[in-house]
Amino acid sequence: MDIAARVMSVVRRTSTSEPSTSSDSNPQKVGKVMDVSDGAFIGGFIPYHSFVKNKVAAIVEKQRYPYTRPEFLYFSEEEITLSSDHTIRPVLCPRLPHRMPLYAGYAEVINAGKTIQNEDQASAKMLVLTQHQGAEMNGFSEEKKIESRSSNSAEIDDDPMLTPGGDESEKSTIFSLRADAALFSLFDGHAGSAVAVVASKCLHEHVKSRLCEVLDTLLHLDRQENLNFGKHRSESSYSMSKMNEEDEARIRSEHLVKGALETAFLDMDEQISQDKQVWRLPGGCAVISILVFLGKLYVANAGDCRAVMVTSDGTKALSKDLTPASERKRLQELAYRNPELIGNSFSRLEYSKKLTKKDLKSRVLYRDWFMDGWAVKTVKECDLRPPLISESSRKRRLLNTIGVSRGFGDHHLLTVDERLSIKPFLSAVPDITVTHLRDMNVLTDKDVVIVASDGLWDVLSNEDAGLIVRSTLGSTDSADSSRYTQAAQDLVAAARGQQASPNLKRWVLNSGGHASYDDITVFVIPLKYCAAPPADLEEEEDDEMLDLE
Amino acid sequence: MDIAARVMSVVRRTSTSEPSTSSDSNPQKVGKVMDVSDGAFIGGFIPYHSFVKNKVAAIVEKQRYPYTRPEFLYFSEEEITLSSDHTIRPVLCPRLPHRMPLYAGYAEVINAGKTIQNEDQASAKMLVLTQHQGAEMNGFSEEKKIESRSSNSAEIDDDPMLTPGGDESEKSTIFSLRADAALFSLFDGHAGSAVAVVASKCLHEHVKSRLCEVLDTLLHLDRQENLNFGKHRSESSYSMSKMNEEDEARIRSEHLVKGALETAFLDMDEQISQDKQVWRLPGGCAVISILVFLGKLYVANAGDCRAVMVTSDGTKALSKDLTPASERKRLQELAYRNPELIGNSFSRLEYSKKLTKKDLKSRVLYRDWFMDGWAVKTVKECDLRPPLISESSRKRRLLNTIGVSRGFGDHHLLTVDERLSIKPFLSAVPDITVTHLRDMNVLTDKDVVIVASDGLWDVLSNEDAGLIVRSTLGSTDSADSSRYTQAAQDLVAAARGQQASPNLKRWVLNSGGHASYDDITVFVIPLKYCAAPPADLEEEEDDEMLDLE
Repeated sequence: MDIAARVMSVVRRTSTSEPSTSSDSNPQKVGKVMDVSDGAFIGGFIPYHSFVKNKVAAIVEKQRYPYTRPEFLYFSEEEITLSSDHTIRPVLCPRLPHRMPLYAGYAEVINAGKTIQNEDQASAKMLVLTQHQGAEMNGFSEEKKIESRSSNSAEIDDDPMLTPGGDESEKSTIFSLRADAALFSLFDGHAGSAVAVVASKCLHEHVKSRLCEVLDTLLHLDRQENLNFGKHRSESSYSMSKMNEEDEARIRSEHLVKGALETAFLDMDEQISQDKQVWRLPGGCAVISILVFLGKLYVANAGDCRAVMVTSDGTKALSKDLTPASERKRLQELAYRNPELIGNSFSRLEYSKKLTKKDLKSRVLYRDWFMDGWAVKTVKECDLRPPLISESSRKRRLLNTIGVSRGFGDHHLLTVDERLSIKPFLSAVPDITVTHLRDMNVLTDKDVVIVASDGLWDVLSNEDAGLIVRSTLGSTDSADSSRYTQAAQDLVAAARGQQASPNLKRWVLNSGGHASYDDITVFVIPLKYCAAPPADLEEEEDDEMLDLE
Repeated sequence: MDIAARVMSVVRRTSTSEPSTSSDSNPQKVGKVMDVSDGAFIGGFIPYHSFVKNKVAAIVEKQRYPYTRPEFLYFSEEEITLSSDHTIRPVLCPRLPHRMPLYAGYAEVINAGKTIQNEDQASAKMLVLTQHQGAEMNGFSEEKKIESRSSNSAEIDDDPMLTPGGDESEKSTIFSLRADAALFSLFDGHAGSAVAVVASKCLHEHVKSRLCEVLDTLLHLDRQENLNFGKHRSESSYSMSKMNEEDEARIRSEHLVKGALETAFLDMDEQISQDKQVWRLPGGCAVISILVFLGKLYVANAGDCRAVMVTSDGTKALSKDLTPASERKRLQELAYRNPELIGNSFSRLEYSKKLTKKDLKSRVLYRDWFMDGWAVKTVKECDLRPPLISESSRKRRLLNTIGVSRGFGDHHLLTVDERLSIKPFLSAVPDITVTHLRDMNVLTDKDVVIVASDGLWDVLSNEDAGLIVRSTLGSTDSADSSRYTQAAQDLVAAARGQQASPNLKRWVLNSGGHASYDDITVFVIPLKYCAAPPADLEEEEDDEMLDLE
């Protein structure tokens, strides 16, 4: 993300038992800052009021997880260095594509020079979920009280996981308390790669932990839903609509998965907040996760990465971009309810045009936090302040600083001039969509989900990306496990384009338009293997590891 | 709405220059209250902190608008009294159905005895919009600065309304600065009918005033949009998707209409807040408005009334019910950000079951403000507090008090035991949908929008209501201007049902199920006349008025 030279992240290096809540009253306390345009860390005091009150926290001048590329690439240190060539921008793919979870394809390319490191990160994991997953799960079997609110159906509420010796024991044994899931995540870092790296190492553990917390109830509900599938079809039209309301209120297995993802995302952000007291963790990252579990595909998005489903029916976005532009109402409402967050430095309103002194007393269209529409007002002095969400030709920014509104990190991000804290406006809460793979028409091996950072979507439309993938998959052998990686490679290559001439450092699309100068990262996940995971995957694994060593 | 005996509205009758912000510290200041179960007003002091600070406001013991039924019914005082027979529950219709705006149908019936008055209200108005609409519009022609953000297209930004002497003058004369609109509104009152009555008398004036404020720009944009219609179709697939993004950001005429509705709803609530200082205005009301303007149908909803479109393609809800259940996340987030609003009296969380002391230390499913899903937690003492949104078999309530979360009024509504103010949770902001009538397939005279209070929707599904209307319209003459009122009448009669036996006061549906005991109010608006208003309507009007007198 291009927020270079605009973002200022200041990190406290020595302790103050009562940090000043006003940066203006103690300007000398605010020391040197990190300018992320060159990635150099200088360090300084932080006036951020909520930061480790009454606690001495010496910032260690190193990172818990040093810069790296995704594990599944199996790159050596040397290869990682070579991958960062901004002039050549090589498209990188996993060395062992058939070892990727669900044979998912992957490709990445570094930016055209705006940051030294590739600030995108990725992780792809098979999660083995078991009931007794560490200390947190002790006593979980005592949970006999979980009931769905609509308790008409006895079979839903009678959880056999909780009565293992009862008459349900036979059924219980059918379901082992182990389940497998696949998790793919993309992280698009800004103001450094540190937060994206930490998140790529840890998010799946938080998701796993949260899923295991509710695994018994989750598997029980999933079984009931599969048994009940189709049962409601025989009802009359009238009782059907009443039934739907009850169904709506009933807790289903997918709600527990959603809850696990939602809480895991907040856990991850909280971990970063804690880690920051010990490790060096400037900046933040947008994040998108795709969880494949029990015949459903969950897309949890907190930022401007995007997942797009491509089938013979066409393309369909499975996430919506969460940016200062799309989250205007949420951000404006926060400023409305907590005006101190913007002080006298910004105007909460959005205007139909950039206002100058000449516009005073004239009329302008505006919209406030509660409005989807526009209304008219007379321009006053306070309307001349820069707007909370700035206008910009390409990307709108929050508080004139940051181009995303969700994700992890950024705990100490301040605005350049006014030293206002930006974190209160940022959210780690994911927006989640669920796709029921079992309800879909017959899936072919050309049906995929494309997951990519904004480096791709800035220059390719969903439809363009779909066409490229279908074209690649149409010309590859269905037995070739590397074909989804080839598709990812073609996507990344298309968005990166070619150098107009070797010394010009100008990248152009095949069509001649501006190519992407950003980091570009892409997963291509085959839906067929999401619906029915390939059986041979695990057996192969060990042999391959030996080959690698 | 049945909130009798649960709602407590206390109204200040004498002034306190500095109202206490804590009800507990000055319990003697809190005087008698109004118990809305019998509609009797007793009056008392109000500890509501934001109420007319430093201002003496004597509450007049009478209402500005006394109880009545909608104007368009043309009922005498005597008829209004007769209409309130809870034992017979006559279905009431306009005396002159052909005088209804756009020949819309209407019918209503009083509740089965839960309140003395019919707390539903309605209004139906033709709005004649003109540019110079009172003092507010002075100087509006000076507004030369309104521009759409995406200013690529010169013809959009060059507003001929603002350059009347220029080369656009010829085109300008094509567009008179007068436009007609139709506005239908339903108000479902609670804790008395006063707020619903005031809103039914005033809302259309606020809407009219806000529309007139932007009329020139609005008409200009509408003309441009009609000229450009179809222009984009010739673009290529690639530039198409880019174009859509720009279109998305561009201010269109419908945005100005939406903005007018949004601000007018807040104006209305503000007026009630002001009127309350002088007039007796207990309680509040849910509201839904249907605005027909320039070939589009706007549904602005703030509450649990509902608009449903019925065409040969089936039924389609044009609004979603806004209730404590559907607005859980908004309400929980308010309590999260302002915990003082619920103090120690309520728990912000929603739980999968009603918790008692026995559940302490066991595990329960819950969800918080940021969650669509459910997660697990161990029950603590604070979880035993009543939840912010109570569970209930039929209707969930906010703070154990009110069954709606949006609408007008309720400025002084407090919870029964804890005397917490409920108004901060309530919102007068409408949710707005827009239906482009010109884009629809050929409309027939059986295509309508049903607008009704929850008294109807509590016992009829959207589909049931659609079938009833289509059946009535199928058996009436298309030249009969009363046919939409007949359809409304049939809907209301179906939802009210029949008395099981004359003395039992038990109302049953034809199917045998429980009928609605609530006030029931229904508009049936013919889409054909929304798309092309009947020309003879206005000419007829004067003659009819003479007939009536």
